[in-house]
Amino acid sequence: MRLVGVLITYVLLSACVDGKPQVLSSWVEGATRSAIIDFVAEVTTEGSPHFVPVVDRIAVFDHDGTLWAERPEYFQFLMIYEQVRAQAADHPEWREEQPFKAVLGNDTAYLDGLDYAAARQLSAAVSGGMTTTDYMALSHDFATRSLHPEFNARYADLRYQPMLELLEYLEGHRFRVFIVSGGDMGFIRGFSEPLYGIPRDRVIGSSRSNMFADDSSSILRGKKYASMNVGANKALNIDLHIGRPPVFAVGNSDGDLAMLAYTASHDGFVLLLSHDDDEREYGYTDGAEVALQAAHEEGWTVASMHDDFERIFVQTN
Amino acid sequence: MRLVGVLITYVLLSACVDGKPQVLSSWVEGATRSAIIDFVAEVTTEGSPHFVPVVDRIAVFDHDGTLWAERPEYFQFLMIYEQVRAQAADHPEWREEQPFKAVLGNDTAYLDGLDYAAARQLSAAVSGGMTTTDYMALSHDFATRSLHPEFNARYADLRYQPMLELLEYLEGHRFRVFIVSGGDMGFIRGFSEPLYGIPRDRVIGSSRSNMFADDSSSILRGKKYASMNVGANKALNIDLHIGRPPVFAVGNSDGDLAMLAYTASHDGFVLLLSHDDDEREYGYTDGAEVALQAAHEEGWTVASMHDDFERIFVQTN
Repeated sequence: MRLVGVLITYVLLSACVDGKPQVLSSWVEGATRSAIIDFVAEVTTEGSPHFVPVVDRIAVFDHDGTLWAERPEYFQFLMIYEQVRAQAADHPEWREEQPFKAVLGNDTAYLDGLDYAAARQLSAAVSGGMTTTDYMALSHDFATRSLHPEFNARYADLRYQPMLELLEYLEGHRFRVFIVSGGDMGFIRGFSEPLYGIPRDRVIGSSRSNMFADDSSSILRGKKYASMNVGANKALNIDLHIGRPPVFAVGNSDGDLAMLAYTASHDGFVLLLSHDDDEREYGYTDGAEVALQAAHEEGWTVASMHDDFERIFVQTN
Repeated sequence: MRLVGVLITYVLLSACVDGKPQVLSSWVEGATRSAIIDFVAEVTTEGSPHFVPVVDRIAVFDHDGTLWAERPEYFQFLMIYEQVRAQAADHPEWREEQPFKAVLGNDTAYLDGLDYAAARQLSAAVSGGMTTTDYMALSHDFATRSLHPEFNARYADLRYQPMLELLEYLEGHRFRVFIVSGGDMGFIRGFSEPLYGIPRDRVIGSSRSNMFADDSSSILRGKKYASMNVGANKALNIDLHIGRPPVFAVGNSDGDLAMLAYTASHDGFVLLLSHDDDEREYGYTDGAEVALQAAHEEGWTVASMHDDFERIFVQTN
């Protein structure tokens, strides 16, 4: 089986134009890239002892911090803040009430410590009752227009080029790729098709207790979350939406741990992205300590942004 | 636009072998079959004013009574009864306790009046704590082995041939077809791939509050239902799993009404299957009165099993 892998790796590595590999070309040629190519060859080569039928080829990717930058703030939060400001004239009470007051006063110290509960409160206030279609239009507009506060680039331009190549590589080997994000389902669906080529029905995110409009025309966003798609819920929602364990999983934080462990327990490939490039992106391990420890103990593959990414972002950087 | 439809219909109807149409060949040539073909031509022909891009081509099908027989009892109930009998030795208390007692004593009068709450109680008792994978294996085995109590045929052989052709026809026009059933998600997923060619991730059903196993290897079925996928929940779960309204919807009962109305409100095609063939299948309107009335008022297409189905079942009947 290893021989098959080595052989396929050789064939793929040989498929170069002017010495540059044609697949995963923004990945540094080294152990991480080879591990990916070897695994995909093993599970997609007929006759290999680890061959996986097409119907079982499920790949799952976390979103924030895995497919694009998540620092200094989740992009979704920035959209919510913008909506709070846009809707403030209709809610004079927000001027005195936290966490709205902090957003309107740009109280960065307060906002830096914002917890999920407060973020949910803001999100419910600005989008409860909105149709899911309108919410997707909002996030599509925001993702293709708004600038990251530090990189002076649109978030759409802060997608990780090596990960886009990995999505394409897996799809080329007939994997069905799903985004499995802690972010709001509608938020990610607003741009998953133009930015990642992933249809909305392959986006799993946090979901709300929505309502069916009286005139049957639309779905209205509820004010409460039905499922926060982090931790064990990622594994549960993979089963709910997909119905089989993944063969390939990519994440970057402790919130992905259950999804990664679920994949590993079915002999799947687990890739943990390490944010260790303070110069080109960000250097941090907080929120990923447990996942990094698990990767070390379980022998999961860790991709170093510093060492494994030839380039970081879609745009020249 | 109508001209385009007519033209395409002509071309398709001309594609015959020895005078027999090659598509939807188990549908009687008439208004219902033509309405389907015309609609699909309109939404899939480039330049048509009603052209629908591939990414938006979502079709949803109810399962019981739409893709296979649902009388005299839901097949899922029969599997649950079998499990009650199989597990009875471990539960002596069931001999005295309803609804278990009725199952073990084959009290058909009691079981005929079984409501959803009692059925859920039975289902929870026999499958709570089972892995979702094991449950799918159970239903796969049952669907391909067990006999319908009146037709002396396996349920797998009681799939409706015209509907199988419709699934294939839509998929041939690049629709993504989803099953949207009131039945248990895992129950339908157990056989959706071999019986309908529909992958598990395109099956939406009633779901439970499941648990992630401590060893991270599997998902355990909870004892409570999280979402009963009937009525408005069908529309809500379509949005949850798919993220866009369907363009084509097929159902047969009042439980499908919200899904059908949601599709209709987006100019989608709505097909309501009428069980009006007492000789070849069953004749009944109970549980479909509101849907039939809505179809009449809204101008939805009603498919008559008696008039529109050349043959009913996959097997020769």
